[in-house]
Amino acid sequence: MSMSEVAKTIIAAKESKGLSWEEIGNAVGMSPVWTTSACMGMNSMPKETAESLCNLLGLDADICTALQKYPTKVWDQAVPTDPLVYRLYEIVGVYGETLKEVIQEKFGDGIMSAIDFSMEVEKEENPKGDRVVITMNGKFLPYKAW
Amino acid sequence: MSMSEVAKTIIAAKESKGLSWEEIGNAVGMSPVWTTSACMGMNSMPKETAESLCNLLGLDADICTALQKYPTKVWDQAVPTDPLVYRLYEIVGVYGETLKEVIQEKFGDGIMSAIDFSMEVEKEENPKGDRVVITMNGKFLPYKAW
Amino acid sequence: MSMSEVAKTIIAAKESKGLSWEEIGNAVGMSPVWTTSACMGMNSMPKETAESLCNLLGLDADICTALQKYPTKVWDQAVPTDPLVYRLYEIVGVYGETLKEVIQEKFGDGIMSAIDFSMEVEKEENPKGDRVVITMNGKFLPYKAW
Amino acid sequence: MSMSEVAKTIIAAKESKGLSWEEIGNAVGMSPVWTTSACMGMNSMPKETAESLCNLLGLDADICTALQKYPTKVWDQAVPTDPLVYRLYEIVGVYGETLKEVIQEKFGDGIMSAIDFSMEVEKEENPKGDRVVITMNGKFLPYKAW
Amino acid sequence: MSMSEVAKTIIAAKESKGLSWEEIGNAVGMSPVWTTSACMGMNSMPKETAESLCNLLGLDADICTALQKYPTKVWDQAVPTDPLVYRLYEIVGVYGETLKEVIQEKFGDGIMSAIDFSMEVEKEENPKGDRVVITMNGKFLPYKAW
Amino acid sequence: MSMSEVAKTIIAAKESKGLSWEEIGNAVGMSPVWTTSACMGMNSMPKETAESLCNLLGLDADICTALQKYPTKVWDQAVPTDPLVYRLYEIVGVYGETLKEVIQEKFGDGIMSAIDFSMEVEKEENPKGDRVVITMNGKFLPYKAW
Amino acid sequence: MSMSEVAKTIIAAKESKGLSWEEIGNAVGMSPVWTTSACMGMNSMPKETAESLCNLLGLDADICTALQKYPTKVWDQAVPTDPLVYRLYEIVGVYGETLKEVIQEKFGDGIMSAIDFSMEVEKEENPKGDRVVITMNGKFLPYKAW
Amino acid sequence: MSMSEVAKTIIAAKESKGLSWEEIGNAVGMSPVWTTSACMGMNSMPKETAESLCNLLGLDADICTALQKYPTKVWDQAVPTDPLVYRLYEIVGVYGETLKEVIQEKFGDGIMSAIDFSMEVEKEENPKGDRVVITMNGKFLPYKAW
Amino acid sequence: MSMSEVAKTIIAAKESKGLSWEEIGNAVGMSPVWTTSACMGMNSMPKETAESLCNLLGLDADICTALQKYPTKVWDQAVPTDPLVYRLYEIVGVYGETLKEVIQEKFGDGIMSAIDFSMEVEKEENPKGDRVVITMNGKFLPYKAW
Amino acid sequence: MSMSEVAKTIIAAKESKGLSWEEIGNAVGMSPVWTTSACMGMNSMPKETAESLCNLLGLDADICTALQKYPTKVWDQAVPTDPLVYRLYEIVGVYGETLKEVIQEKFGDGIMSAIDFSMEVEKEENPKGDRVVITMNGKFLPYKAW
Repeated sequence: MSMSEVAKTIIAAKESKGLSWEEIGNAVGMSPVWTTSACMGMNSMPKETAESLCNLLGLDADICTALQKYPTKVWDQAVPTDPLVYRLYEIVGVYGETLKEVIQEKFGDGIMSAIDFSMEVEKEENPKGDRVVITMNGKFLPYKAW
Repeated sequence: MSMSEVAKTIIAAKESKGLSWEEIGNAVGMSPVWTTSACMGMNSMPKETAESLCNLLGLDADICTALQKYPTKVWDQAVPTDPLVYRLYEIVGVYGETLKEVIQEKFGDGIMSAIDFSMEVEKEENPKGDRVVITMNGKFLPYKAW
Repeated sequence: MSMSEVAKTIIAAKESKGLSWEEIGNAVGMSPVWTTSACMGMNSMPKETAESLCNLLGLDADICTALQKYPTKVWDQAVPTDPLVYRLYEIVGVYGETLKEVIQEKFGDGIMSAIDFSMEVEKEENPKGDRVVITMNGKFLPYKAW
Repeated sequence: MSMSEVAKTIIAAKESKGLSWEEIGNAVGMSPVWTTSACMGMNSMPKETAESLCNLLGLDADICTALQKYPTKVWDQAVPTDPLVYRLYEIVGVYGETLKEVIQEKFGDGIMSAIDFSMEVEKEENPKGDRVVITMNGKFLPYKAW
Repeated sequence: MSMSEVAKTIIAAKESKGLSWEEIGNAVGMSPVWTTSACMGMNSMPKETAESLCNLLGLDADICTALQKYPTKVWDQAVPTDPLVYRLYEIVGVYGETLKEVIQEKFGDGIMSAIDFSMEVEKEENPKGDRVVITMNGKFLPYKAW
Repeated sequence: MSMSEVAKTIIAAKESKGLSWEEIGNAVGMSPVWTTSACMGMNSMPKETAESLCNLLGLDADICTALQKYPTKVWDQAVPTDPLVYRLYEIVGVYGETLKEVIQEKFGDGIMSAIDFSMEVEKEENPKGDRVVITMNGKFLPYKAW
Repeated sequence: MSMSEVAKTIIAAKESKGLSWEEIGNAVGMSPVWTTSACMGMNSMPKETAESLCNLLGLDADICTALQKYPTKVWDQAVPTDPLVYRLYEIVGVYGETLKEVIQEKFGDGIMSAIDFSMEVEKEENPKGDRVVITMNGKFLPYKAW
Repeated sequence: MSMSEVAKTIIAAKESKGLSWEEIGNAVGMSPVWTTSACMGMNSMPKETAESLCNLLGLDADICTALQKYPTKVWDQAVPTDPLVYRLYEIVGVYGETLKEVIQEKFGDGIMSAIDFSMEVEKEENPKGDRVVITMNGKFLPYKAW
Repeated sequence: MSMSEVAKTIIAAKESKGLSWEEIGNAVGMSPVWTTSACMGMNSMPKETAESLCNLLGLDADICTALQKYPTKVWDQAVPTDPLVYRLYEIVGVYGETLKEVIQEKFGDGIMSAIDFSMEVEKEENPKGDRVVITMNGKFLPYKAW
Repeated sequence: MSMSEVAKTIIAAKESKGLSWEEIGNAVGMSPVWTTSACMGMNSMPKETAESLCNLLGLDADICTALQKYPTKVWDQAVPTDPLVYRLYEIVGVYGETLKEVIQEKFGDGIMSAIDFSMEVEKEENPKGDRVVITMNGKFLPYKAW
């Protein structure tokens, strides 16, 4: 069973149960963003989390097994076309050099890890139009000299 | 004078004055991230901000003029190679579909603006290794039907 | 059911009913361009519009559900090959810098939104050959400084 | 003298005279969009227009000659990165298939010419935020059978 | 039925009838090159021509309908690999700038239309080796100033 | 001296003498298309032709030498952007498979040479708009079996 | 039946008969390299050769027909990844300019044909390790001036 | 001094001395193909060979030093455009899979080295047109299992 | 049976037997890395090794045959996206020039073979976090002059 | 001063002093591989190391300053062409999936860091041809769930 079939099955179950990612994340005791990413096939779930999710949504054992696999993370579009995702790509293009300047000024030569990493999405209500707030939190890894 | 020459001149002045982006941003009354991005040629400065920055750093009038131009935002590498910037690109690739799911669940069909947008970088101290915290804040724009 | 199957089913129904996009758009109370784009899988329909369209064309409930999903907007060809679409791409290439100059002169530093956006197509009759008139209308979004 | 040097010289003269593209277009009796495109090196000016523009801006004879050359239209980025231009590219990607459906329904099998073509940009004032209105007008060219 | 299935069906019928494109074109009253291109899915046939072709080759009504559709012209290889087609691509690369010089010298600033366009292929017998003669005939379209 | 400098020098001399490619080709006893291509650096001139051209245009000996070199034929854009050249590329994309069918039907398995090859451009006057006629003539090369 | 299915069928038959390409080539009276290339779908077989091969390997009439078709030569990877094929690509990259110098010194301005062309592979035994000897033999085609 | 400047200097000296690559190779006791490749910056010369070549052509010590450097082998065009070099690329595309079949049948699983490798070019006179004969000779390297 | 089906079958058998690559490699008398690579379709197994592996895992004869084929080594992503594999790609990008300097200083002009090559992976325990140790061992191949 | 000028200056000094990277690394108390990478502009040197290196090689203060900057790591070729570097790229392509299997079996879901990373190159003498031994040592980073 491919991860995109797993994702489709989970989304169908989620819709028929009328649950949100927020609710699913809370039910399995993890962040909604991380839970979604694992269901999309971009993170592997610990056994208990996978079982909890499959119980919640009434999914078969093979889904449960698939969710525990270490996924191969592949994306097809070097430059994404969907407007929501492209805007994130554009932010990396426009602000990449700026972030390098600012992060390395604060921390020294190194990078923000994308592995020892978490991310949250919040809704900030605003009379001029609500705002999306994305918070990324990654361990700073200094370059090693040897 | 090209924007990359402007950037080099500003960085040289910043180093000879021993100032950080944090201090420069505070001095001109703007966020350090936005200030850096304007100096990198990725945002245009209002006249007073540009003047304030040039006074602070002792820069010529042509730098001041250049900082007020509406920049053409160009990046050469569709896939960035510098490890710090690549990790951000990787986050878009790995979590792009997840963010689409989560944002559209919270807000409906639409996107997070990269124009009506701000970003901060903070250092979170941690005994296991300090962490980089990036917060993005963009207006939600719903798709218009007509 | 994939959006390209949805699109094929709608086009087949449209042809068997002998309806034009103009007539379908009018019947569901939306612009023909927007209606077509939603049927092509590039915009999501509000529930009533989807129901109205499915009644008009005699389509099943699963088409109605699919039309309401928030679509992932993907196109395969970075440079389109179909001559009608390529000419639009060519206009962006030839006149992109010009539009940047003219729009930013009129509005200041910012962009025309492709989300808060509408578009119409008209036929202008002309003895030397009829002309296609495309009108795009997008909200101006000024860059935010912070 | 390369066309990008010509463009820079014209923009410098335009700024020192304090003229807008709107005013320059009106002064030489052409549309502001077309006038800008010719100054950007994407259209050739008739002799009188070039002379009129060079008189207005106080430019040398070699600029006048360069403006009359038939330009080779080249753009570097298959997918543009500047946000203003990218949004136009995105519109082609998202709505290309839709425009093909709608135009060919109205006109038959053929294309909108990008050569026998004109374009205007207007500002539509709106209390919720001004709007950019771009109107494209191109001759319909039916495919020839032989 | 996809256009590549239509093309395969036509070629199979053509082979079983022992007809050449020359004979088919003559029978339906059109040029062999154009007739072939329509069967390959790159041009749409008027109703009578499609019926005439289907009668000649004994093909079903769905082929007849498919031949009348306005095709979406797509090719996969930006640089073609088949040696016969590559040589044509090479001619565009080697002689493109030359053709621009020569055509614009004869006609002024503009292009040769690929829509109001026809093409013939002839065999020129020659004792040193027969020669392929391709004649392209396209309307000159002058750039419009506005 | 690079071939693009050679080309610029020749074009400047051609303009100051007020000669067309037609006249230059006739004066040196070669086709205008071939003569232009050699001046653009895409063919090597025999010694007498180069001398004749340099006498006609009053060019130095180093131009004469450069014209006799065997050129390395390089083009930068896999997909050309200039509209005149793109239309030729589009013809290869749209009609490539058709030409393969028609040529191989007439000649057997093989290709049209782009080396043992000539090309002419003519103007066909037409009240509905003049037409460009391009004639390509290349030796048929059958595939060798061994 | 696609050419890759034809190739698989031939290879399966070859293996079950225990024959080498060397033996098959000899049996049908052609070079092993050419015979292999025709079975891989990169050359068309004359009728007698195809029949002889199908008799030898016990293959059906539809294989025999398919082998006689004029193939469309397509390869997917602009830069091949298989190490054996990549080394050949590397040789073209490293020695391409050298071969141009040496061939054009010996023959004048022109190319080696890849159509009127043959190739052999031999094994040269050597105590330090056997060596692969590839011999290419192509007609020299001088550029034509006209 | 870059290798392309070294190559230009050597070619200028070669031309002023009226020597061929054949003669230069013979004079320095190496193959003409290898000698040319070293002068093009694609192989490093042993000290004595470089000195011998510089004496023969009257070149400075810095050329002699540059010829002994271990070159970084870079080519710009993943798919070459010059027709002579493209034909070699085409041969790799058309016959790559064939060569893999034939070489691995004769030698087992492995590759032909492009490092422990030599190549010769010969002219084969032929009344129907002379032929280019390229002979490649590379050590077979079997894959190692461990 | 394609190699990716072979790989899936082997992985399923490996999981149902509860064996690691380490144990499988030891059981068939080969390195775990090499054994894995052969199961992934990137190396061919000698007959005895393939039989031993199929006995161990209870696999059919067709798997055994497939494992002995000489594989065509193909990878789809010129730049890999999976974070584990990308880090290796990044190391080649960041340290490629460095390795060229250091290897050629130690060995002279030449390369490290990727064919006469082996690789091991070890776990180095470390209280600050375990470390991955990859050791590559490839024959040095000096460039041949001829 | 660009990093490639810094690198050239260092290499020139290194050659005139007759020092190897081995000797330079030992003199400054760092690994030869890391020292080389810092001189190539791919790592930043601590102040003392940079001073020690500049003293050793007799280099100016601006070189010393440049070596301490945090470099932007850029490489031009997504697929490298130099044979030594390509072989490393090929190893990533051929063995990437294998390394993912083997590393994740030993360590769980995660990656080998390319930042907290070191690398050594050794020469293994061997009568059949010396061997290059590259050892990579990177911290294992487990994916974080949150």
